[in-house]
Amino acid sequence: MVNRDELVVKSLGPCRVESPMLHLLKPRERSYYNVDPADRVLFDDTASALARRGSSPDDIPGFEPAGPRPEIYFDPSKTHAGIVTCGGLCPGFNDVIRALVMELHFLYGVRRISGFCNGYQGFIPKYKRPVVDLTPQSVSQINEAGGTILGTSRGEQNAGEIVDCLERMGVNVLFVVGGDGTLRGAQAISREVEARGRKIAVVGIPKTIDNDICFIDQSFGFQTAFSVAADSIHSAHAEAKASPNGIGLVKLMGRHSGFIACYAALARNDANFVLIPEVPFRLDGENGFLAALRRRVQRSGHAVVVVAEGAGQELMESATGADASGNAKLGDVGVFLRKRITEDFAAANLELNLKYIDPSYSIRSVKANSFDAVYCLRLAHNAVHAAMAGRTEVVVSRWHGRFVLLPIPLAVRDRHTVDPNGDLWMSVLESTGQPAAFG
Amino acid sequence: MVNRDELVVKSLGPCRVESPMLHLLKPRERSYYNVDPADRVLFDDTASALARRGSSPDDIPGFEPAGPRPEIYFDPSKTHAGIVTCGGLCPGFNDVIRALVMELHFLYGVRRISGFCNGYQGFIPKYKRPVVDLTPQSVSQINEAGGTILGTSRGEQNAGEIVDCLERMGVNVLFVVGGDGTLRGAQAISREVEARGRKIAVVGIPKTIDNDICFIDQSFGFQTAFSVAADSIHSAHAEAKASPNGIGLVKLMGRHSGFIACYAALARNDANFVLIPEVPFRLDGENGFLAALRRRVQRSGHAVVVVAEGAGQELMESATGADASGNAKLGDVGVFLRKRITEDFAAANLELNLKYIDPSYSIRSVKANSFDAVYCLRLAHNAVHAAMAGRTEVVVSRWHGRFVLLPIPLAVRDRHTVDPNGDLWMSVLESTGQPAAFG
Amino acid sequence: MVNRDELVVKSLGPCRVESPMLHLLKPRERSYYNVDPADRVLFDDTASALARRGSSPDDIPGFEPAGPRPEIYFDPSKTHAGIVTCGGLCPGFNDVIRALVMELHFLYGVRRISGFCNGYQGFIPKYKRPVVDLTPQSVSQINEAGGTILGTSRGEQNAGEIVDCLERMGVNVLFVVGGDGTLRGAQAISREVEARGRKIAVVGIPKTIDNDICFIDQSFGFQTAFSVAADSIHSAHAEAKASPNGIGLVKLMGRHSGFIACYAALARNDANFVLIPEVPFRLDGENGFLAALRRRVQRSGHAVVVVAEGAGQELMESATGADASGNAKLGDVGVFLRKRITEDFAAANLELNLKYIDPSYSIRSVKANSFDAVYCLRLAHNAVHAAMAGRTEVVVSRWHGRFVLLPIPLAVRDRHTVDPNGDLWMSVLESTGQPAAFG
Amino acid sequence: MVNRDELVVKSLGPCRVESPMLHLLKPRERSYYNVDPADRVLFDDTASALARRGSSPDDIPGFEPAGPRPEIYFDPSKTHAGIVTCGGLCPGFNDVIRALVMELHFLYGVRRISGFCNGYQGFIPKYKRPVVDLTPQSVSQINEAGGTILGTSRGEQNAGEIVDCLERMGVNVLFVVGGDGTLRGAQAISREVEARGRKIAVVGIPKTIDNDICFIDQSFGFQTAFSVAADSIHSAHAEAKASPNGIGLVKLMGRHSGFIACYAALARNDANFVLIPEVPFRLDGENGFLAALRRRVQRSGHAVVVVAEGAGQELMESATGADASGNAKLGDVGVFLRKRITEDFAAANLELNLKYIDPSYSIRSVKANSFDAVYCLRLAHNAVHAAMAGRTEVVVSRWHGRFVLLPIPLAVRDRHTVDPNGDLWMSVLESTGQPAAFG
Repeated sequence: MVNRDELVVKSLGPCRVESPMLHLLKPRERSYYNVDPADRVLFDDTASALARRGSSPDDIPGFEPAGPRPEIYFDPSKTHAGIVTCGGLCPGFNDVIRALVMELHFLYGVRRISGFCNGYQGFIPKYKRPVVDLTPQSVSQINEAGGTILGTSRGEQNAGEIVDCLERMGVNVLFVVGGDGTLRGAQAISREVEARGRKIAVVGIPKTIDNDICFIDQSFGFQTAFSVAADSIHSAHAEAKASPNGIGLVKLMGRHSGFIACYAALARNDANFVLIPEVPFRLDGENGFLAALRRRVQRSGHAVVVVAEGAGQELMESATGADASGNAKLGDVGVFLRKRITEDFAAANLELNLKYIDPSYSIRSVKANSFDAVYCLRLAHNAVHAAMAGRTEVVVSRWHGRFVLLPIPLAVRDRHTVDPNGDLWMSVLESTGQPAAFG
Repeated sequence: MVNRDELVVKSLGPCRVESPMLHLLKPRERSYYNVDPADRVLFDDTASALARRGSSPDDIPGFEPAGPRPEIYFDPSKTHAGIVTCGGLCPGFNDVIRALVMELHFLYGVRRISGFCNGYQGFIPKYKRPVVDLTPQSVSQINEAGGTILGTSRGEQNAGEIVDCLERMGVNVLFVVGGDGTLRGAQAISREVEARGRKIAVVGIPKTIDNDICFIDQSFGFQTAFSVAADSIHSAHAEAKASPNGIGLVKLMGRHSGFIACYAALARNDANFVLIPEVPFRLDGENGFLAALRRRVQRSGHAVVVVAEGAGQELMESATGADASGNAKLGDVGVFLRKRITEDFAAANLELNLKYIDPSYSIRSVKANSFDAVYCLRLAHNAVHAAMAGRTEVVVSRWHGRFVLLPIPLAVRDRHTVDPNGDLWMSVLESTGQPAAFG
Repeated sequence: MVNRDELVVKSLGPCRVESPMLHLLKPRERSYYNVDPADRVLFDDTASALARRGSSPDDIPGFEPAGPRPEIYFDPSKTHAGIVTCGGLCPGFNDVIRALVMELHFLYGVRRISGFCNGYQGFIPKYKRPVVDLTPQSVSQINEAGGTILGTSRGEQNAGEIVDCLERMGVNVLFVVGGDGTLRGAQAISREVEARGRKIAVVGIPKTIDNDICFIDQSFGFQTAFSVAADSIHSAHAEAKASPNGIGLVKLMGRHSGFIACYAALARNDANFVLIPEVPFRLDGENGFLAALRRRVQRSGHAVVVVAEGAGQELMESATGADASGNAKLGDVGVFLRKRITEDFAAANLELNLKYIDPSYSIRSVKANSFDAVYCLRLAHNAVHAAMAGRTEVVVSRWHGRFVLLPIPLAVRDRHTVDPNGDLWMSVLESTGQPAAFG
Repeated sequence: MVNRDELVVKSLGPCRVESPMLHLLKPRERSYYNVDPADRVLFDDTASALARRGSSPDDIPGFEPAGPRPEIYFDPSKTHAGIVTCGGLCPGFNDVIRALVMELHFLYGVRRISGFCNGYQGFIPKYKRPVVDLTPQSVSQINEAGGTILGTSRGEQNAGEIVDCLERMGVNVLFVVGGDGTLRGAQAISREVEARGRKIAVVGIPKTIDNDICFIDQSFGFQTAFSVAADSIHSAHAEAKASPNGIGLVKLMGRHSGFIACYAALARNDANFVLIPEVPFRLDGENGFLAALRRRVQRSGHAVVVVAEGAGQELMESATGADASGNAKLGDVGVFLRKRITEDFAAANLELNLKYIDPSYSIRSVKANSFDAVYCLRLAHNAVHAAMAGRTEVVVSRWHGRFVLLPIPLAVRDRHTVDPNGDLWMSVLESTGQPAAFG
């Protein structure tokens, strides 16, 4: 399709001028997201392409492609599918539910589809959650609303009890829509099924508004989320500019990963400072954040600060405990920064008009935008294909733009975070003009 | 980072049931977008990753990664940059202009940036188009509006005259934002520069609302465009459902490539039929489109048809001639289908309430959504990096999610089209339920 | 509450300078919408307020206030309500249906509510349209979509057949949502009911996207409509500015009344010329529209023209016939102007880049915005109050901001049009800068 | 135009059935917003209309109509206009500034227009705020952004110092855009001007996002504001429905007036309880709010509560002090309710998933929607007309749909509040189903 030489880029001549960006480039180490310029991105990233070229790709890691198979494992007319949605709200839940049902019903002819309510609680007798029959009729309009028609909850439940329920109801195929903790739960369910010698496929559709699941290009709902977040930053900008020494401070989602903060800050270019968990910062001192902020306000009259909720945790007296999902409780960095900025300006005897915006609930509850709607649909289709072909303990993913199948253990092994050496963070530094490090 | 075995997906057992989707699968040939299930998608798609694994990637095609270089070719303080926007409107033009100027000014310290007006006409004396000084001040708010502040025009201009102008004005670095024809023009400019022994970098930012440039994951403005297009389809759906035997017929952009039609149809699931240039169809006969449409309306009371402007050209008496960009004039397939559907229903003595919507100008003139805004910004940053490092006759691209540099000759060698064997078209078939072929 | 003297406005002194706007003011005659400055707008516009002041308001025209009555005519537990929606789509149909059902069910306890499908056809046996049971459950989400769940159709049907149907089904209360022609039909139904000595209340909710029903401050859906229309004008503006000698030409709804064109043109201030049915214009001659447009384009490089569909009919060879609603068929003024402008520029040997946008179907099919949603709700509530109190041959209306009851004969006696002497048209002249008259 | 009899509504017969809504109707007293059904709303609410009918309208309160006058007081070529924006942000500020400048420049030919920055601080030397030249060029795009390009501040400044500044700069005409406190300031300026025997017109454009200025149909920005607020309620609804015993609690603007809460609650019908300052409520007891909320959640599984910031102040330990605008500091009713609801559910041993949303800054900083954009434009035009005609100590207003001139003393005499006996609150009760009173 294309040969090597065609991909060679012309150059006017050797580069002998030191880049004015060198101060930003020097501290960057090579990484997956910061490739050596002398390296190359493969045109065709499949193992077969390598083999055709004479390379031996046998021991090179590669994903199983997703997609429909000519022969499948389950007999559709005897298949009972279950769907459950878990964790915090995220744009696209209903799109996924809808597409699962439509695909199972119309493409495969599966007629029994049960929706379990309020996450894993829906399988446990003591919670008394209803089970809902899902039909094309009942789901046809649900993608026009945010939230999830099945409800959700946080927290794990006993895998044994869940498999008891699946067995009692004769569910063969279980679709689990959720994040890190939820997928660990799905893995436990799958292992329990295996231990009992049952044939129940457990397939995940990865959900994380923070975009923090590994080995996934981007999680569904993420684009919708950062788009709404960008509007909040725009509001903060309008507020900041309207008042003398105005500061707009926006706290966004991102417990461990600052993707929403980064993308939202890039979207409308209103932010002057972006603080994320992956890049620690100091508050005090001449090169600290507070001094940089103060200088910016004195120079320009206003500033906009975007902070991901997981940023700066090391600066606060540590919060303790965990929520029902097992997530460590975070200190509220937004409230903390508001206090510290206020004190800092007071100490410098400077007027301050700080407006603090925390839009999280308004972001995660909107319906999916058009891109995410398409993406949810295609993830769901591929989840159905995988399940009907008997794949289990697996989540559907998109990697390099291709839909692939990802073993759950790998998906939950680590977190996807913003690479401080990568091109996204470089874009943030370029766009905001903030220093590469505070302190 | 990850080893081979970790990527193996669990399976419940061998697949022995024939898939109910087999009729859709059988006609599909393997392709770049329809990978054999036994194949693998590489985890790390760089040449260096292969080398680390012991493969010899030397002769495997790979792109030069984009990004800032520690040493650059041009001396920023002596650099004069030019920017020109060409062809039809597309969401994001102003985002690109803004980001080019900001990056050149603040990151590299380039102080002379000239905007040439109305496409390549801006270089040619006889058109008397003004040249605009571009500064951070003058571009700071332009991303809030659609269109392009530099204006645009279709059509090529003499490369010699253009290089005369660049030489007269001392422009060292030229950024060209445009599509297929525009990039061919940029190639001609680059060749002329080379022939004269000059050192002027010519760097393209690929613009095509149709998403039809090769070797680019997705072109800027595309997501915005299909999102607005999806709203038009939603309107057509409301109209169709409101009237007895209602048909909503929507013509969308897509001269050679049906991407907008496909994605817009998937976004809100309102379409029942999608017609694209890549998949020819017959109108007449029992298995033709008209009979299928008629049956659908009789069964369900209404239908929504989405057609890309380049579809069905072989069915019309051929239009002749070409527009100023050298594009062949297309017959108006929307008007043609409206006529044929109307005649068909009349012949069948059926009531018909057909509403025809042609939203193209309202789609291409809106401002970029948040995703495209970020994407434009990063394309522009990488274009600046490439130009300052002396790369020329090149366009910035994103491939497999990575920003890369793509030689112009390759970008214009062919068109990016929807693969009839690929996963996108499969998604459309799954979602609409339309037959794999008409006729 | 307030006395006369408190309303006297302070003045710096007598006005002795001739206004630069005098050329716009001179041709204006006094009208309902162009009050003499020496006149006064009453603080309290109720008859009782006059009486308290000692005036005798007996013979002064006044509306019956809408609203709930302590005693009503129908016994809710024995009431069967019917709802029908007629004519072209308009944002808010579903909001009205929803609010009628909710109010009847929850506030009055009416349990039998039938929806008749596809307008008046729904009552006539030969069309075989279904009758739909409407319940709070079935309508709870319908306001999130445009269109009407009951469908619609144009055209009258025989009042006798309709009343036959109402009698057969025992409908006591009929809600008719529609425009001019529909309300005439409602009047005929009401008269037939009266002639038969039956007690069936016929209550209209006035629907006209053109805002052309008399004695109504503003019709529902109008604000949504002009808001979407303003976006189309904005697109036309982006297109016009992007091309040398660019003209954006937008045709909007408005058969007899140019309200949408006027308000949409004012919303984002992109229009340079607004043409409406109420203000005839000449095309040719030095002071004609074409010459004015040509001068504008030569001076500024681009122009945006907004034309209501009913404008300039006298300039075209008259179209003949009528549509199913009895509306006279209009010549297509958009296509006509496109042709004439193109010819005019060609004759003057001027480049022209004209983009023509006709967004009507995309405007009328969207869902109601928040204002219209509230307005629909309150109109529907008041329609229920009126019907339950036995009012008939009546439409609910808002007058001077108050909800009132308006006899149908008055509502259909005339059309509401833009007053060429009024303040709205003056605002358009001030905002566009176009001359008070062409020719 | 219309005579008395034409306005008589037909009735099927006397009303003898007690309304099921009687419990809502009984406690309502007649008011301006709750007219006796036997009363009448005048068709033409002008004094001249009364006179034509033979009534003597001399002593009936009436507003001076707004609009352009044939003769004006100021000579445009010698006029220097000033503009200042004050108080909290509100959608439409920039639309007003833009329209003032355009109208002064193009319609009247006023060439000197100065913008004073950060409210009244802009006139006071010690604050060192800049003065900005406002031209059609500089304001042409500002309506596309929220906020105000002039900045704003709270609080009064010394009228003497302000008039000193106006005299020094030769400002003849001052436009003040602001609310209650700002208009009091404008009155003081006007009085000081008068005391000095100067001829400086002081004209207000009333700004209040709460819609709480008297004698104004609706303030600009209000429709935009409640529309965005309705989206927050929709988010709260999605959150509430997604969790077992979910409660969405939304705090909206409205220090003294619950208009935003009422309209936003009506817009998408998601709210179950609306709490406003005008309708006191009890928390405790069998008929209190907490018990009603608990019952609702137990019955339906979730609930949405909307509270205006000024509601329930009497229930909290009183906050003290005032902000810079002289507004009494309010207790935070949102945080207070969150605490009390949480305690109440804990005491009842009920699960609770409460999500609290406080969207105020995101509401007030957006740009005006199309309706408000038109409204701002027309208010500004009429402000210019009034000022050029030498009117002073006046604000422009719309009353009964007509633009009128309102003396400032009257505008600030009282507050516009939701009438607990009026039709708006009745609509809220009808729509939410909440009891007429708690406790």
